[in-house]
Amino acid sequence: MNIGLDMMGGDFAPLEAVKGVEAYVTSGNEAVHLTLIGDEAQIKSHLEAHPVAVGRYTIVHTTQVIEMNEHPTKALKEKKDSSIAIGFYLLATGKIDAFISAGNTGAMMVGSLFSIKAIEGVLRPTIGAYMPRENGTLALLLDVGINADCKAENLNQFAILGSLFAKYILNFDNPRVGLVNLGEEEGKGNLLAQAAYPLLKENSSINFIGNVEGRDLLIDKADVYVCEGFTGNVILKMAESVYDIVKRRNIHDEHFDRFNFEQYGGVPVLGVSKPVIIGHGISHATAFKNMIAIAQRMIETELLKKMQESFVVQP
Amino acid sequence: MNIGLDMMGGDFAPLEAVKGVEAYVTSGNEAVHLTLIGDEAQIKSHLEAHPVAVGRYTIVHTTQVIEMNEHPTKALKEKKDSSIAIGFYLLATGKIDAFISAGNTGAMMVGSLFSIKAIEGVLRPTIGAYMPRENGTLALLLDVGINADCKAENLNQFAILGSLFAKYILNFDNPRVGLVNLGEEEGKGNLLAQAAYPLLKENSSINFIGNVEGRDLLIDKADVYVCEGFTGNVILKMAESVYDIVKRRNIHDEHFDRFNFEQYGGVPVLGVSKPVIIGHGISHATAFKNMIAIAQRMIETELLKKMQESFVVQP
Repeated sequence: MNIGLDMMGGDFAPLEAVKGVEAYVTSGNEAVHLTLIGDEAQIKSHLEAHPVAVGRYTIVHTTQVIEMNEHPTKALKEKKDSSIAIGFYLLATGKIDAFISAGNTGAMMVGSLFSIKAIEGVLRPTIGAYMPRENGTLALLLDVGINADCKAENLNQFAILGSLFAKYILNFDNPRVGLVNLGEEEGKGNLLAQAAYPLLKENSSINFIGNVEGRDLLIDKADVYVCEGFTGNVILKMAESVYDIVKRRNIHDEHFDRFNFEQYGGVPVLGVSKPVIIGHGISHATAFKNMIAIAQRMIETELLKKMQESFVVQP
Repeated sequence: MNIGLDMMGGDFAPLEAVKGVEAYVTSGNEAVHLTLIGDEAQIKSHLEAHPVAVGRYTIVHTTQVIEMNEHPTKALKEKKDSSIAIGFYLLATGKIDAFISAGNTGAMMVGSLFSIKAIEGVLRPTIGAYMPRENGTLALLLDVGINADCKAENLNQFAILGSLFAKYILNFDNPRVGLVNLGEEEGKGNLLAQAAYPLLKENSSINFIGNVEGRDLLIDKADVYVCEGFTGNVILKMAESVYDIVKRRNIHDEHFDRFNFEQYGGVPVLGVSKPVIIGHGISHATAFKNMIAIAQRMIETELLKKMQESFVVQP
């Protein structure tokens, strides 16, 4: 399999991307070939200090970079030789099997939607985030900001996509799906949550456990938490800020160290037809290494095929 | 002034309510007379162990209690001699100047809306929560669950009500209002936040500082955070759960101790025509004492009059 990595994306690119590649290749993973997309001279210069076995990678030279603050659609249109635009081209044409970038999130989303498209039947692809728990496992929260306004059916589809990711990538046997809500009882909620509840309840392809509240998000209550992207985004950023406060107050605690979201690398775009992983802007080597490992697992487990099968319309 | 207290509300009533009254009266506050509403025999029996100066209180005997899990409207209708129903009767008829209860939140809201009514011009009263900050001050977050679905104008009104509460009760000179959102830039957000932004921006009676994100909620970014009750409820319960996790992990930290929301006593119902404070079900003595103090301050500062003036329609 061939995994493409945007070497120019992220605050510490391409150095940290190269270090991530070095760490990944050093730890084995012989079956994976890496396509390093970016400025060849810069990549090669970093490879001198962080050597990677020849034959494990190919460099695809690009001359442009989409910066973090650029307008996604405009940048993708104008910078055709950017690492992100080329990455999606390679993915769309089957030259790579997955694409990873810690660059401009908006451009990654636009590329996901327009270069490789949504899985047939998926109304709105989504992007998730991990929620750390005291037992060391990670739950998945989605959506976290791409879909600020949702319909009930969107949440139902997020639940299906999230369950498959939780099963095959996070290794939960029968992942529990919780609907983020303001009360536990059925019937509680805003109009959206009230409308989503019966859809989730009747959805036989997921293990719906009912409503979950804000107090359940950081504990082992569900494995997949579903909400629209507005609330999800607030939840994610609030959880991230807990880590900042803990660090500022010099608290050392194994569990709160898990609130360092950077270590998880990236989050997958779910609902698009090929594996795409979007990394945090501040990604360091470990994050890049982890993202490659997740992409590998998405390919090995044929996750995308399973997602496509879940949305096949029954005749 | 005469402050009414539901002695039967809360998980530890009436004992903790009596202890709260004892603590409050012992600390001075000569100007305040307390009306203790509940089962006279029970209250008197606890007063033996926790004596309160005669003349500082009157007991209004009631024979019924609205339990925590009862249906609010139904319970208020059927239990006419409950401490909550009598409390609102006394408030509506001017026999008490404020009413406090740690009992059934729904019944307290229904009573607030139908016994004493909303301030003229206020579309939807709201209920807030305090957000602790590292500098020891408290910000106000509203709504936290009463208004799960909101229109932009509701958020604008919450901002006005919250600003007045922050100014007169929390002692902020010119409280900064932040709109909870998924990004900082104007134009970001779901449809509601996008519609609320210009209203808040053009509202000359508040000090609007723009959008705030999830990561800003626990720091000193704004003094009043405004959002619909769905997101607000999730934020509040998530913040509460951080305290639980901190305790479970045996972390001792002055700041995280502030996440013990119980100590703040209750939160006011804002936008109704008289002072009403709703306490946490698990309220202990300190919480009751603090709630009485907040009610006292709401009366002393003529907060309700100021709120009414803010909503007078200009001819």
